[in-house]
Order: sequence, then C-alpha cells, then structure tokens
Amino acid sequence: MLTSEHTATLTTIVGPEHIATGDSERSLHSRDQSSHAAHLPEVVVWPTTTEHVRLVAAFANQHRIPVTAWGAGSSLEGNPIPVEGGIVVDFARMNRILAVHAEDFQVTVQTGVLYQDMNKTLARFGLFFAPDPGANASIGGMIANNASGTRTVRYGATRDNVLALEVVLANGDVIRTGSRSIKQAAGYDLTHLFVGSEGTLGLVTEATLKLAPLPEHFSAVVTSFATTEEAAEAVFNIIGTGLSPAALELVDTATVAAINGAGEFDLPVAPNLFIEFHGATEATLETELKLVRAVCAESGCRTFTSGLGRAARNRRWDARHEVAELLIRTHPGHGYIITDAAVPISQYPALVADTAETLRELEGVRGFLVGHAGDGNMHAIVFFADTPDEYARVQQAFNDHIVEKAISLGGTCTGEHGIGIGKQKFLAQELGTNSVELMRQLKALLDPNGILNPGKVVSPI
Amino acid sequence: MLTSEHTATLTTIVGPEHIATGDSERSLHSRDQSSHAAHLPEVVVWPTTTEHVRLVAAFANQHRIPVTAWGAGSSLEGNPIPVEGGIVVDFARMNRILAVHAEDFQVTVQTGVLYQDMNKTLARFGLFFAPDPGANASIGGMIANNASGTRTVRYGATRDNVLALEVVLANGDVIRTGSRSIKQAAGYDLTHLFVGSEGTLGLVTEATLKLAPLPEHFSAVVTSFATTEEAAEAVFNIIGTGLSPAALELVDTATVAAINGAGEFDLPVAPNLFIEFHGATEATLETELKLVRAVCAESGCRTFTSGLGRAARNRRWDARHEVAELLIRTHPGHGYIITDAAVPISQYPALVADTAETLRELEGVRGFLVGHAGDGNMHAIVFFADTPDEYARVQQAFNDHIVEKAISLGGTCTGEHGIGIGKQKFLAQELGTNSVELMRQLKALLDPNGILNPGKVVSPI
Repeated sequence: MLTSEHTATLTTIVGPEHIATGDSERSLHSRDQSSHAAHLPEVVVWPTTTEHVRLVAAFANQHRIPVTAWGAGSSLEGNPIPVEGGIVVDFARMNRILAVHAEDFQVTVQTGVLYQDMNKTLARFGLFFAPDPGANASIGGMIANNASGTRTVRYGATRDNVLALEVVLANGDVIRTGSRSIKQAAGYDLTHLFVGSEGTLGLVTEATLKLAPLPEHFSAVVTSFATTEEAAEAVFNIIGTGLSPAALELVDTATVAAINGAGEFDLPVAPNLFIEFHGATEATLETELKLVRAVCAESGCRTFTSGLGRAARNRRWDARHEVAELLIRTHPGHGYIITDAAVPISQYPALVADTAETLRELEGVRGFLVGHAGDGNMHAIVFFADTPDEYARVQQAFNDHIVEKAISLGGTCTGEHGIGIGKQKFLAQELGTNSVELMRQLKALLDPNGILNPGKVVSPI
Repeated sequence: MLTSEHTATLTTIVGPEHIATGDSERSLHSRDQSSHAAHLPEVVVWPTTTEHVRLVAAFANQHRIPVTAWGAGSSLEGNPIPVEGGIVVDFARMNRILAVHAEDFQVTVQTGVLYQDMNKTLARFGLFFAPDPGANASIGGMIANNASGTRTVRYGATRDNVLALEVVLANGDVIRTGSRSIKQAAGYDLTHLFVGSEGTLGLVTEATLKLAPLPEHFSAVVTSFATTEEAAEAVFNIIGTGLSPAALELVDTATVAAINGAGEFDLPVAPNLFIEFHGATEATLETELKLVRAVCAESGCRTFTSGLGRAARNRRWDARHEVAELLIRTHPGHGYIITDAAVPISQYPALVADTAETLRELEGVRGFLVGHAGDGNMHAIVFFADTPDEYARVQQAFNDHIVEKAISLGGTCTGEHGIGIGKQKFLAQELGTNSVELMRQLKALLDPNGILNPGKVVSPI
C-alpha cells in the first residue's frame, strides 16, 4: 500500500505533471489487449529521463513497492498488468529518438517511442525497424516481450535486432550492455538476458536497434491450396530454394470466408498463402516471382496471383493485416482468446490439423486460424460467450490443448506474446524444472526484493 | 592438485580408454592458437555421453577441481587454456550428429562435432551451418566463443543460429534451453546466456542449430580502390541498396602484396574488396552483379572483376581464405598477434586509418590488415621478434591501442575471438563497471565454486 508520503516522494522525483493517482489514468493502466483480468496500479508515473527511472527504482526497492513498466499496453498475455498494484512506470514521455546512425543502419532511442512513429522518422533516412507486431507497440514493449510478427521470417524477431541497451536494475544501478558493433563477443550476453524478460529483470531505458534499408521494390503473391497440409508443404519448398520472403503467411478457409464476407475481397475460399518479397530491383523480384510460381505449382496450388510494386503489395496485404481487427469487430460482445503456440515448420501441418479438429469438437465457439507459416507460429482466434465459465472452459479445452500439442511437437507455448500471466504453468513442461529453477535464481539475483513486474514469467508459486 | 584417488574416480566415470595423464596429451591440451602462455592440465578426459559430463562436473564441483571444456583448440584468445590446471574435458568423442531435421533446416548434435565434418554430412541434405570461423572449430567451441567469420554479414554469428541447448551446470544439473521453434518467447533467454560464455557458466553438451540451404548459385567480385576509405564507403553503399552479400571482405595493400608474392595471384596492389553472393538462380545473381558493379563504379573503384558460378567464386576466394596461413607461413620464427576489434561500419575507415598509422610508427613489426568489412570487424596480424619483451611491447603499443580506439568509436574489444585471457582488462572500459559486476554475479550464481574454466572472462581480480 502506497502512503501519501510515498506519493509525495514520487512527485518530487518525476515532477507533479508526470504523476497520476486518479481512477481514469489508473484504469487506463490496468489491462492490456488480452482477456486477463484488469488490476489497478496505485499510481502511474511518466519519467522523462533515465535518472527519473533510476530514482523511482531505488525508492521502490527500498520500500518494497511493485514497479511495472508500461509501453503501449498492446500486449496479449497480461504482460504489463500490475497484478500487485504499486507503481506503473509509463515510458510514453521517454520517446525521443536520440541518434539516427543512418550510415550504420542503426538508431538509438528512448524505449517509450512507438515503433510506427519511429519508423516514420526513419523513412526519411530510407531505413526501418523491421519487426512488425501489428499493433503500434512501444520499442520498450517490443524488447520486453521479444515481439515479432509477419516479417520475422526474413528480418528476425526483436531479439535479433537489438545491439545495445541501457537498463535500470531493481536497485537503481544503471548498466549498459552490448555496443554499436554488429559483431560482439565481449563477455556474457547481457543484452539478450533482458530482451524477452518482460520487465521482470530490469527497466530498459534506451536501446540501439539494427535497421534495414527500406525496400525499394515489392512483390506480393496470394496463392491457394486444396488443403492446409499442401499449403504448408509449399512453405518448406519456397524456403528450401534459398528464396527469402519478407513475409509468408497462412490464412485458413474460415478466415478467408470472413475476409470475403467483409466485402472488398474475393479470395478463393480455401487455405491461402500470402507472400511478400522485398528486393533491390524489379528485375530481381521478377526472377523470384517466376521461381516462387514454379514452386507453388509443383506444390499443387489451385490459384496463384502476383503483382509487382508497392500498390500491388498493399492491395493484397490489406486483407491479411486487418484480419484480427475484422474478426473482433464482427464478433461484438464475445470473449476471445488468441493462441500463440509455435512449432518447427515440419510440424506446422500437424499443429494446424489438430487445432482444426479440436475446434470442430468444441461446442459454442467460432475459430479462425492465421499463421506466420514461414516461422511455424500459429494464432488461432476463438470467440465464445463472454462469461468467466466459458473463458475457463475454452482456455482449458482449447488453448491448453494447443500448447501441449505444440510442446509435444518440439515447439513452444509462445512464439511472440510472451509468458506473462497465462503461460507460466507451461514453462516447466516445455523446458524442464531445472531450467525454470535457473530462471527463478536469475530473477532472485537481479531483483532480490521481487519489485519488478511481480506475478509474471516465474512468479513464486 | 589432483590425487590418485581423484584420477581413479574420473577413470571410473569415463572408462580407462577415455582418460589420459601423460605429458603428450596434457601438452596437446595446454594451448590454443593464440600467443598466450601454455599451461598443462593435470588430466584430460573424453566423455562420450552427457551423463559422463554430468558426473565429471558434479565430482569436480564437490572437490573444487577446475574443469575446462575443450573443442578443437583453434581459438585465438587463450579461451580454453587450463590456466589453473585440473581437468580438461575434451568433447572430441561426443561428436555425433543426433538428428538432421532437414525439412526444418535444423540439426541437433553433440557439441564435440567439428563444423566442417558436420557440414560434409549436411551437404547430402542440401544444407549447411553458415558461420565459418576459418579453422575447423568444434560446434561447442563456436558456441562457447560465439564464433563468426566471413559469412556473418549475411547469415549472422553463431549466436544467431542456435535454437536450443543442453547444458551441464557446474553442480551437475542438466538443463535444456530453447526449443526447435524458430520463434521463441518462453521466459528468460537461457540459450544466449551460454552462447559466448566461453565455458565459464556451464558445459554445453548438445545443440540444435539453424541451417541454411546450400546455395545453388554463386557469384564473386574482386574490386580495388585507391584508398581504404573509398573501399569502406563502397561497403556502405552496397549494403544500403538492400543487396545481401554472403561475404564482404577488405584486404589492405600490404596483404595484397603478400598474396601476389606467394605466386598464383595477380591482384591490383591496392585495397581490395572480396565480395560473394549466394542466390537461388543465376538470373538473380546477374541482376545483383550489375547493381554491385554500378555501386562500386559510383564509389570510385579502379578495377572490378566478377564471375558467376562456384569455380569463379572459389578461384577468387582462395586468395582471401588462405591469407592468415600464408602470412604465418612466410614469417617463420616470428611472434604474432591478431587483433579482433570491431566498430560500427561508419567508423571502419577511421579504425583502419588509425591502425595503419600506428603500424607505420611502430618499429620492428610487419603488419597486415584483413577485415570482415561488412561487419566492421578488423583483424590486423602483426609479426615481431619472438621474445617476451617484444610480445609485451607490441601488445601494449599496438593491440591495446587498437582496442581503445575501437571502443572510443562505439565498438568493441572483440568481434569474434572472445574475452578469454587477454581482453578481460578492457571489459569495464567498454561496458562500465556495473555491467562487469553483473557478469561477476552471474558467474557466482552459476558456478559458486569457480570450477568452470577459471581465469577467463571475469576471473576474480
């Protein structure tokens, strides 16, 4: 419980214009975009400097007050919900782009910057940060959750695109990790200890990110198959040729029907692959398109449409990008769960088949499959009556089942949404108790008082 | 000091055919390919199973006996020299390829396998493990040192190509990290805590690696420039187009002269770039070659030769690949130091210019620059009279100077050789004392008795 003295101290640290205790702001920082129950923080602070974060952490550590970092609130596993109250540290006012190292394809930012805002600035330099989680996440949130998305198949996840960090530890110590050198071998990899740690090991205040040159030329393909298995086989074949698609997505028949039903699209009602290529020249892309067309034909595609240029790409990708939003919009008043299991590509058809069968047997739900096929990551969105009982039933009969299936196939309970609240129960099953015990020891080493985002990743049982 | 009882217990664990205490084997495990002083272990064991490693670690931990992992002994910073004696665990007999997951572009191996041997097997599946450190390192050594090499500019370092590990901790606990899923967000990134930890945090017994499709088509370019700065600018321009060379190497004028002097080559005596592309089709490569030729011309290249096909690639790359060997062979009886600093690409010309100037001012040495320019990593090989005094003088006046320059340019003391023995003194300068302190705490957490490869990375001061 924060006292008025605590609040007064925090006000002194960040300034009166950067702190709120009112219901409205606390409510806005009580839940993310998942279905996990909201929990109010006691106070929200908006630091503007690393020094603010340092002082807040040191103060909170001294008084054993929970500190939960907040980016854009767009996560999907309850990752930033302040389940034990305390202080939410909202990084929104630490959103400066500190340096664009255009000639090195790097940028150094405060972590509160939203990635779409950052990419608008970077476009002026012909550069962009490639991981694309869909929502307009903050860079800090993307680092905390190791966010990825449709472009990971070519450009990697956030983890693969972080070079250096500034991190405030639980006790207020500030550390720097990594360097601006692409190649690094200087001691333990502290950078990647913090990437994906969901704010439970430290508060990331600055980051130096790898950028990619904004592609000058685009091509896009939409191709349909008789079965999901055939579509998945085409995915292997495409990657096996050495082609490097910028995105390679699978959308199932039910989702295609929903997209078509929304009006503007007329896709073949069948499993579809959406494929995008980025290239330095149109000639390169034309060569690639010929090859991918041949591979898809050999893999038994029923239809194949392609186009060169940004407009063609955008037209085809609009359908894919808006799927989640479209589905949620067309299911008002429903509860929903988005699964996030990921498997080796060879096991993707098995995961998809199992998911489809589970959905057919599960009463009272409507399910849609949308997958980052090139990566083996599958999202199934299921809608159901919005009651706690239904949530619990679907969670167990669907999400838990999918996760266990994915683990049995050599995969993981979470490809990109993180452990947060809901996936903790699977960690030992996936990695074994010794690994989870080591994670607990790391948590205890870095945050001995357990103040950083308590209740997440490896919260005490 | 090991007693005969200790040796007897170790013999029981691994079997009498897998242990040696004779001078010959101890001597073979007393030094790597660096100039760091040799130190004999007391005993060498060759485990054949993870269970052997587990029992050796638990036994050594109980009796506080140093345990140093050994791969191929090809490292360059003293990383596996058993400076406190004890047990060397040679992984050479844990060299099985456990599973080729060809359809997933993955392989699971025991870590004693040599990467060239592994790649021969993988070639039958049309796959290869891309990081190429030059020497025929073991996979375990590559993981321990986060090895990279000429192909990192396209395929990443070892760090970027490890999906999952089995690790024996100091106390004998066996943990599994990661999974076979390309996308992973399940808890703290234990995999990358061990990659690059040089055997000081655990003994890596198995690894699942990402593979790349063996390129079907190759092209190669050799292009020369008036100055190193112009060559470096061409490097930025090439990468800025979105082209993705498989290798992009800079060789300075002195090195070119040495290569030509060896006989078979007749390169322009000037700074040269060696460039390689991998492609799915010859048409793609032809398009890329046109573009890279235009970029090099705009960047002021003096000569430009290129060729398509494996033979053309091999002919051009033979010159580059054999440089280190050639230089060492042509300087018999000399001491040598190979620097390993790396900087952001934009600072590469500055680092090279400073290095060249330092070499000119330094008496009694001959120096050669060979760089992974696409990555900002520079190796300078300097030869001098083989005496301890000369070694100390050149170390200080040359290597230390280069490292400090690289750090001042936003770079690192080591791009790919690791901290080992010689770079420990630079860690705090590069990362700050708080980061080094956290590394020390991690070491103490994972290896409380300090038995794992003592004297390396963050050895007690």
